[in-house]
Amino acid sequence: MSAVVKYDEIEVGQEIPAVDYTVRRVDLVMYAGASGDFNQIHWNERFAKMVGLPDVIAHGMYTMAQAGRFVTDWAGDPGAVVDFGVRFSSMVVVPDDDRGATISVSGVVEEKLEDKRVVVGLTAKSGDTRVLSKARAVVQLA
Amino acid sequence: MSAVVKYDEIEVGQEIPAVDYTVRRVDLVMYAGASGDFNQIHWNERFAKMVGLPDVIAHGMYTMAQAGRFVTDWAGDPGAVVDFGVRFSSMVVVPDDDRGATISVSGVVEEKLEDKRVVVGLTAKSGDTRVLSKARAVVQLA
Repeated sequence: MSAVVKYDEIEVGQEIPAVDYTVRRVDLVMYAGASGDFNQIHWNERFAKMVGLPDVIAHGMYTMAQAGRFVTDWAGDPGAVVDFGVRFSSMVVVPDDDRGATISVSGVVEEKLEDKRVVVGLTAKSGDTRVLSKARAVVQLA
Repeated sequence: MSAVVKYDEIEVGQEIPAVDYTVRRVDLVMYAGASGDFNQIHWNERFAKMVGLPDVIAHGMYTMAQAGRFVTDWAGDPGAVVDFGVRFSSMVVVPDDDRGATISVSGVVEEKLEDKRVVVGLTAKSGDTRVLSKARAVVQLA
């Protein structure tokens, strides 16, 4: 498979519009089963509060996965992300209702590299809180 | 929550023994549902081969999640990983049988930082193939 976005048509500074991802308690239960990370802070409100958290919080890797999906959806190729790194700067708190929490991901092309690769800087927020910082992906374009 | 591993007891060069994680087709189906990444290369063998892959392959973020779990299990705190970055260097090919594929993750403490943090370098292999390279996590210890 190869990317849809063409390297030659991309400019440094170009913005990738924000996409909102909803995360509900049930998503975290599914993610626990899929990842094998069953820590109670991700599904048990009583336990989360007992250890000092405001409420159940999303797995950091879940949030990171949404940011990864944002990049591959943009590039049009699930294998487009070559390098991926983030700092987990804040928690995504997930209330027990149907709206859940929202993770809003946006990006900007920060650098053009060789071999038709670009560096995409990512921002992930939940409400006004930045939940990933120093998030960047090296992306293989067409 | 806080980590179990104590910063003062850790030395640079210390190795974290390998842990093997099994990944079966059903894990990828669960991961698709949890992450929202339903690309067919992760569950449809016919499609995967049609686009030139050897077989169904694991989501890169799934492999990365196992490496993250390795670190938090070692540290004893699900929130211990502050920074996390990898290069996706090769695919994890998942055969259609009960044994599935194995992702073997090991680590070494590469650097001691301020604030009781350490840099852990990670190796993730499937068989003899390195599936993550330049994988590193900054980990908050006790």
